[in-house]
Amino acid sequence: MRVVTTGTELLADALGAQAVATERVDWRPPVTATSDVTADLARVALDPRRAEANRRAVEAVLGVTAHLVDVGPASEVLGLERGQFLHAGPPIGWDRASGPLRGALMGGAALEGLVDDAEEAPALFEAGAFDLEPCHHRGAVGPMAGVVTPSMWMWVLEDLETGRRTHCTLNEGLGKVLRYGAYSPEVLTRLRWMGDVLGPLLRSAVRRVRDESGPVDVTGILTQMLQMGDEAHNRNRAGTLMTLRDLGPALVHSGEPTDVADVLRFVGGNDHFFLNLAMPTCKLALDAARGIDGSTMVVAMARNGTDFGIQVAGTGDEWFTGPAQVAEGLFLGDYGPDDANPDIGDSAITETAGIGGFAMATAPAIVRLVGGTVPDALAATRRMHEIALAENPRWTVPVLDFQGTPTGIDVARVCRTGILPQINTGMAGAVAGVGQVGAGLVTPPAEIFPAALARLAELVPR
Amino acid sequence: MRVVTTGTELLADALGAQAVATERVDWRPPVTATSDVTADLARVALDPRRAEANRRAVEAVLGVTAHLVDVGPASEVLGLERGQFLHAGPPIGWDRASGPLRGALMGGAALEGLVDDAEEAPALFEAGAFDLEPCHHRGAVGPMAGVVTPSMWMWVLEDLETGRRTHCTLNEGLGKVLRYGAYSPEVLTRLRWMGDVLGPLLRSAVRRVRDESGPVDVTGILTQMLQMGDEAHNRNRAGTLMTLRDLGPALVHSGEPTDVADVLRFVGGNDHFFLNLAMPTCKLALDAARGIDGSTMVVAMARNGTDFGIQVAGTGDEWFTGPAQVAEGLFLGDYGPDDANPDIGDSAITETAGIGGFAMATAPAIVRLVGGTVPDALAATRRMHEIALAENPRWTVPVLDFQGTPTGIDVARVCRTGILPQINTGMAGAVAGVGQVGAGLVTPPAEIFPAALARLAELVPR
Repeated sequence: MRVVTTGTELLADALGAQAVATERVDWRPPVTATSDVTADLARVALDPRRAEANRRAVEAVLGVTAHLVDVGPASEVLGLERGQFLHAGPPIGWDRASGPLRGALMGGAALEGLVDDAEEAPALFEAGAFDLEPCHHRGAVGPMAGVVTPSMWMWVLEDLETGRRTHCTLNEGLGKVLRYGAYSPEVLTRLRWMGDVLGPLLRSAVRRVRDESGPVDVTGILTQMLQMGDEAHNRNRAGTLMTLRDLGPALVHSGEPTDVADVLRFVGGNDHFFLNLAMPTCKLALDAARGIDGSTMVVAMARNGTDFGIQVAGTGDEWFTGPAQVAEGLFLGDYGPDDANPDIGDSAITETAGIGGFAMATAPAIVRLVGGTVPDALAATRRMHEIALAENPRWTVPVLDFQGTPTGIDVARVCRTGILPQINTGMAGAVAGVGQVGAGLVTPPAEIFPAALARLAELVPR
Repeated sequence: MRVVTTGTELLADALGAQAVATERVDWRPPVTATSDVTADLARVALDPRRAEANRRAVEAVLGVTAHLVDVGPASEVLGLERGQFLHAGPPIGWDRASGPLRGALMGGAALEGLVDDAEEAPALFEAGAFDLEPCHHRGAVGPMAGVVTPSMWMWVLEDLETGRRTHCTLNEGLGKVLRYGAYSPEVLTRLRWMGDVLGPLLRSAVRRVRDESGPVDVTGILTQMLQMGDEAHNRNRAGTLMTLRDLGPALVHSGEPTDVADVLRFVGGNDHFFLNLAMPTCKLALDAARGIDGSTMVVAMARNGTDFGIQVAGTGDEWFTGPAQVAEGLFLGDYGPDDANPDIGDSAITETAGIGGFAMATAPAIVRLVGGTVPDALAATRRMHEIALAENPRWTVPVLDFQGTPTGIDVARVCRTGILPQINTGMAGAVAGVGQVGAGLVTPPAEIFPAALARLAELVPR
C-alpha cells in the first residue's frame, strides 16, 4: 500500500507508525493571477513537446561540469569598454535603480576614473552618459548590486565539452562593500588592491593549476560543500577553504611572499569568497537549457533591487518581472526592516540550480544567520522538491539520506501548487552607501510565474 | 504533561502527534559481569561525594580551551630518549603486542637508526633492548599504533590558564603509513621528510602566529568543524582546511617556496591531518578531570591492539582492561574481516570527550566510510546522551537543534543501561607491515565498566 496525504499530519503520522509508505503533499490552492491560470495550465499540460523538452532541459543542466580556467579583468574576458556598466537582475535604467544599485554604480564610476568623486556620478548617469546592461546578457552573474566595470577582475568558468564560459567578479568580503551599495574610500581602496594584487596572483595560480594538473572542478567542490554544511548562497565557508586548498600551493609561486600571505589572509578571512564561484557554476549549468522550446523550466531568477525577473527555457531571452520583495530575517547591529532595500542580486541563480535556499536542509547552521529553526530548514528543502523537475545525483543532502538537491524549477508546478521558490539572501541598505544591513529569506513576487505560464501557453503549437 | 517511554515506539509516536513532550529511553538490561553490579551501583549511588565530584569533573573538562603553542621533536618537547618508544593504549610489552603495533615499532627503530633494517628490530625488542611506555603516561596521544620516537615532530597544545600541555605526532596520511603498522622504505622516507621539512616549517608558522596574533584556538576549530560535517575522528576535512587557513599566511614566510608549496599540498591532500590536533585537544580537556575522588567519569579510553583500557576520574591512574574487539565496517579493496587487527589507538579519546562516534549525527556522510545508515548516525548520538553526564555548550550538533555533544561517559550509567560507548575507528591489518584495511564501528569490551565500577565502589568511604 502507498498513500498520498495532504492537509492535517495526524493521519500520515499514524500510517507512518504502522510502516505504511506515505507521501505527504504540501498542497495549497493554485496562485491567483490576472491570467486564466487553470486554462494556461491545461494548455501547457497538453503540449506534446513538454515532457521531452523538460527531460532534455534537466539532462542538459545536470550534464555540465564547471572548470575554473582563468581569471582576468572584465575588459579582457568580457570585452567590457570604458563607460559600460553591468548590473544584477533584469534590465533597468538609472531612473528606476534602487539605492544600493546607484551606490555601486557611483563607486564603479569613481573606480574607473570616469569621475573624480563618486558624488559627481549621478548627474552623468541621469544624463545617459553611460551604458547599463544586465550581467546575464554578457555571460556573467553578479551578487547583490552586481556592478561590473572594465577594470574589475573576474573568475572564468568553462564547460570543457562545449567551450561555453561564464564569469563573476571576485568577492570583496562583507559589510561596507561595493556590491551592497557602499562606495567610501575604503571600498575603492580594497577594489584597487583586488585589481592590483589579488586578481593577478589568482590568475597566475589558476593558470599554473590548469596547466600542471588540469583546471579545478568547481562543480565537484560544490558536491563536497553540500556535505560540509554549506548551501552555497549564504554559507560558503567550506567552499572557500577548498578553494584555498586547491590554489594555495600554486599561489606560493605567484608573487612576493608578502603579497601571497595577504591573498591567503584575505581569502581565508572571507567565508563568502566562494559565492562568486558558486554563482557562475550554476549559470553555466542552467544556460545549457536555454532555448529548449516547450520546456517549462526556469533558467534564471535575478533581481536588480527594484524588479525580480525570471527567464524560462521555453521562452527565449524574455524576462518576466514583478516588484522585488523585502526579505524577512535577522539584522546587523541597530538596523531593522525599514533600513532594508528590496531583494537584489543575481545570486538567486543558486536557488535556480537547486542549492542555496533549496538546499537549506544540508546547512542547518544557516538558520543562525537568516532566522528560522532547524526543522524549518529541513522542511524548506522537502518543499522545494514539490516544484522541482528532478534531483541532482551529484549534489546530495546527507541528512536527507543523500537525496539529490531539488533541481529545475517548473513554472507549471509553481502555478499549480502555489509554492514559491525559497531564496536565502543578504540584505542591502536602502540608501546608497550604507552597505549590508542583514540577511534573511525571501520569495519572488508570485505573479511572475503565471505571466511566464501564459507566455508558455501562447507558444504551444495549435 | 511530560511522558517517558521505553520499548515499542508506537505509543511515543502517537503522543508526539498530539504534541505531548515525550522522552524516549533506549532501555536495556544492565550489563552482566563477574562482580555484583547491582550492589556496586547501589554503593556508588549512595556515595555522598559523587554528584559534586561529577559536577566538578564536567566543569573541569568543559572549562579547558586548547591553544596550539608549538611544534617540536619528541626528544625536545617530551624529553624522549634514544631507545624509548611510546605506543597507544594501556601498557603492553613486545610479547603481547599485535601485528600493527609491532610493525610500527620496527619502523620506528629503523627511523631512529637503532637498526639498519626494520626486520632486525624484533630480536632486539624481544631481548628487552628498548623501553615501551603508553603515550598517555607522557602527556601524549597517538592514533592507531601511536608509536612515537625521539625524532618525530609533535604538536604542542596548552591550556593557557594552567600551563598544562598535551602532545601528538603529525599525521602521515592514509594507506601505507607507520601508525597502521607499515614500515616499508616509502613509509620511512615520508617520515624523514616530515622531520626535515614539515615539522620545522610548521614550527615556524605556529610560533609566528602565536607571537603575532595569539595561538590558534583548536577547541574553537572543533566548534566550527561540528557545523561542517566533521565528527573529528574519521572525518577531519573541515578541521584540516581551517588549519591550512590559520597557518597558511605564516607558512609562506617559513621556508623556500618549493617547501612551502609541498607542505600546503601535503596537508591539503590529507583530510585526516587535523585528527592529530583533535586528539590532544580532547586529552587536554579530559586530563583536567583526573584524580577527582568520587567521580565516575571516564577520562580516557585507549587501545593497544590487544587490550582496550579505560581510566576513570575517581580511580587515579589505574587502567581497567579487556580484550580489544574487531570493528564492523567497510573494507578497502579485497580486504575482509579476517584481515583486520582488533581495535587499536588512542583516538577513542575523541569519543571520551563527546565527539567522534558520539557526534555521528553531525557527520551523516561518515556512514559512507564506516557503514550504517543516516538514521543510525542520528540514533547513535541520541543513544550516547543516555550514558553521558552533560552536554557541551561549545560543541553543538546543528541538525539536533544545536544540542550539545554528549560529554563525560558515566561508568555507572554504562553499567545500569548496558549501552556501550560507540567508537568510529580505522582498521589496521593484523599482519605487521600491511597498513590500513578498512574503517568501521566498535565498542569497548563490556566487562571493563563493571570492573571500574567495582573499584569505584571499593573506594566509597564507609
